[in-house]
Amino acid sequence: MSETPDSAVRTYIDDHRAAFLDDLMEWLRIPSVSAQPEHAADVCHSADWLAAKLSETGFPTVEVWPTDGAPAVFAEWPSEDAQAPTVLVYGHHDVQPAAREDGWAGDPFEPVIREGRLYARGAADDKGQVYFHTLGVRAHLAATGRSAPAVHLKLLIEGEEESGSPHFRALVEKHADRLAADTVIISDTGMWSADTPTVCTGMRGLAECEITLHGPEQDIHSGSFGGAVPNPATAAARLVAALHDEHARVAIPGFYDGVTALTDRERELFAELPFEEAQWLRTAKSAATHGEAGHTTLERIWARPTAEVNGIGGGYQGPGSKTIIPSSAMVKLSFRLVAGQDPDHIEEAVRAWAADRLPAGIRHEVTFGAATRPCLTPLDHPALQSVVRAMGRAFEQPVRFTREGGSGPAADLQEVLGAPVLFLGISIPSDGWHAPNEKVELDLLLKGVETAAYLWGDLGENWRHAD
Amino acid sequence: MSETPDSAVRTYIDDHRAAFLDDLMEWLRIPSVSAQPEHAADVCHSADWLAAKLSETGFPTVEVWPTDGAPAVFAEWPSEDAQAPTVLVYGHHDVQPAAREDGWAGDPFEPVIREGRLYARGAADDKGQVYFHTLGVRAHLAATGRSAPAVHLKLLIEGEEESGSPHFRALVEKHADRLAADTVIISDTGMWSADTPTVCTGMRGLAECEITLHGPEQDIHSGSFGGAVPNPATAAARLVAALHDEHARVAIPGFYDGVTALTDRERELFAELPFEEAQWLRTAKSAATHGEAGHTTLERIWARPTAEVNGIGGGYQGPGSKTIIPSSAMVKLSFRLVAGQDPDHIEEAVRAWAADRLPAGIRHEVTFGAATRPCLTPLDHPALQSVVRAMGRAFEQPVRFTREGGSGPAADLQEVLGAPVLFLGISIPSDGWHAPNEKVELDLLLKGVETAAYLWGDLGENWRHAD
Repeated sequence: MSETPDSAVRTYIDDHRAAFLDDLMEWLRIPSVSAQPEHAADVCHSADWLAAKLSETGFPTVEVWPTDGAPAVFAEWPSEDAQAPTVLVYGHHDVQPAAREDGWAGDPFEPVIREGRLYARGAADDKGQVYFHTLGVRAHLAATGRSAPAVHLKLLIEGEEESGSPHFRALVEKHADRLAADTVIISDTGMWSADTPTVCTGMRGLAECEITLHGPEQDIHSGSFGGAVPNPATAAARLVAALHDEHARVAIPGFYDGVTALTDRERELFAELPFEEAQWLRTAKSAATHGEAGHTTLERIWARPTAEVNGIGGGYQGPGSKTIIPSSAMVKLSFRLVAGQDPDHIEEAVRAWAADRLPAGIRHEVTFGAATRPCLTPLDHPALQSVVRAMGRAFEQPVRFTREGGSGPAADLQEVLGAPVLFLGISIPSDGWHAPNEKVELDLLLKGVETAAYLWGDLGENWRHAD
Repeated sequence: MSETPDSAVRTYIDDHRAAFLDDLMEWLRIPSVSAQPEHAADVCHSADWLAAKLSETGFPTVEVWPTDGAPAVFAEWPSEDAQAPTVLVYGHHDVQPAAREDGWAGDPFEPVIREGRLYARGAADDKGQVYFHTLGVRAHLAATGRSAPAVHLKLLIEGEEESGSPHFRALVEKHADRLAADTVIISDTGMWSADTPTVCTGMRGLAECEITLHGPEQDIHSGSFGGAVPNPATAAARLVAALHDEHARVAIPGFYDGVTALTDRERELFAELPFEEAQWLRTAKSAATHGEAGHTTLERIWARPTAEVNGIGGGYQGPGSKTIIPSSAMVKLSFRLVAGQDPDHIEEAVRAWAADRLPAGIRHEVTFGAATRPCLTPLDHPALQSVVRAMGRAFEQPVRFTREGGSGPAADLQEVLGAPVLFLGISIPSDGWHAPNEKVELDLLLKGVETAAYLWGDLGENWRHAD
């Protein structure tokens, strides 16, 4: 049994929920839209507001860290127990743009509570999920009678996530010593559904490239020359067609090198989720599923690497026709990567594959952008076990496992800090991230508070550094 | 032997060349640019000018035929011999746009003769090659002492060829009775080179289509959904890649149905031409040849059907990257057709092929434009034999055979009039059609006159209607 009595936590939360919500609503009134220059001052105000609240919460160290863009907030609250693990919580205080005319029922920056839901831009993504940590750590202290958390607790709340985190990696590298942690907890994701609490155990990585193919020095007449010289648009298409074999597996030699295969246990856990294909297809706005043979849809989007064409272009694309062999064509490809894959190796493999497959007379260039590494926490990792137990106590039901198909700054934290990454989020798909009428379910928000309250105690108790 | 003494033809031409060139230069001063509305009156003026000159030449019937665009000129000169064949000569009196600042040494509409070349827009394409028929028929009459040609001679000189002949088919259909002929002679092409006189025996046809592929209802996130739904850009690429097999043959089932194969004799004749690959590649602005296995470059561009991608597009084509699965993609394809292929059958074959190859979840639409049929005159056709003999006498060397890889209004004449099409042109590749400093070689222009002078006599003598 845990040192933290569940009833004490719940009582504390009940007593403080009104003030907690008032504070959160005050924060949501600050339109901290990082993508819009006219809100730059609001993003700074948001950082200062959060810093003040974290000091009020009890964090002895709170700092606003400037970047070349919007500021981040760092806070630290050491445990009195030297053997306690160090946990870094990640979130962000900036929000997506929002305007009433996009379809909001009211002002997106004037929060309202209706039928158990708190509506406002940032309610779920990500201010609500950052802010539950303030009441969470207070409830942990109150219920255990501690004056400092059972873990060394650090928070890093960035201000540019909704703008692609352009300065985040540099920030983490600069402050790597201050940010050092045994594990990173990302509070910027969600769960399967309100009825199915889940923990995410990994994100896919991302490598992106553009391949440009050059044929004739200029567009040439398809009557005079058609059938006798290589066509770069055809070459581009044949390259893309060669990305996948007939089983929809990626056919680039070496692409799957090192891939951490799903265990039978992980596949069973995915299969336990109440996945409904018709519902999922509505979300994907697609008419059918299509993917790697031998894998379910969830395995395909979460745990298998992919190659997708994001764009293709060449020759005449206007109305009517133009009988040319175009002088060039290009494809933009992105590769989602899973644990065990190395972006550098992928780049080499793609370059060799492309060079190998083009006909004589077609010149080509391959340009890779910055890659994001995949991250994956093993199911038996002690910190993951603590999250699952804490969440299970809060939700009073079994916690299942998901992964995230996208890629994000979590990977930078994992890579720079060398710490495994976990995901603690209570948002659900209907919360409308980036959409009008974004909301958070108050019940789930408070379950997030409760999970955090149990988590620090569980981690401190079960994952100690050697004496 | 022919009834026309060569020396008499040459003497007549020598005596009249100065006046002939003066007239042609006068015509070249009229900027009959059909593509530019500000030159609409010039195009009409050009038609009237030509009509007057044809009357002066002796044609008893000369008419300017209006169209919904620029006017055409029709002229007719019946033979006194009822059994003589009827020949329709096709050319055009409109020209490509030209401006001194494009790189012309002088005013493109102020003709100059320099070192045996006549420089002006339209000198070769096509006023020079139309106009040699006026002196040609006069020389034929003078040398044979006839008062009417040995064939029923008709001319149709259109005014919109450089604008894609938008009203030409309707014009030919409207006047099909007046235009009825046993053969059509197109004087709007060229020969292999100044040293190698050639006759073109056919043009490829053309079928064009656009295929649009629809995937998700809108662009979707390649992280959240990548690897699990069909990507229309990938589907487009796989379709294009399936156009050709590993031997660069078109892989659409039924595509080659009915294709008139090259005979061994035709292949030998192509092989006799002084083809130099390095030189041809410079013209094609390409670094290597590529095409159907088992065929030479000339066979590929002249006598084999092709499938080319003229344009392809889908998804994000701007700078940088965008991690989406695009909602749609499209390809524009053109098929060059050879004798024996039917555009309607090709359309059916392409539709069936595309429908058959797309994954579930991808909707598609195929749109075909108006098709152009191929045309081909057999080597042993009596009219072709006459052209070869006439040209051989004028050039005093063997005449070889070419074909044209492009497609043009010749096919409309062949189809509507049901007459085989021959090509009599004396332009050479260096004449700069559509380019600055267009010119015609005076020697070759006069060989054209001479060829025409021999041709009518040879045709009248060797290809008679049954009594």
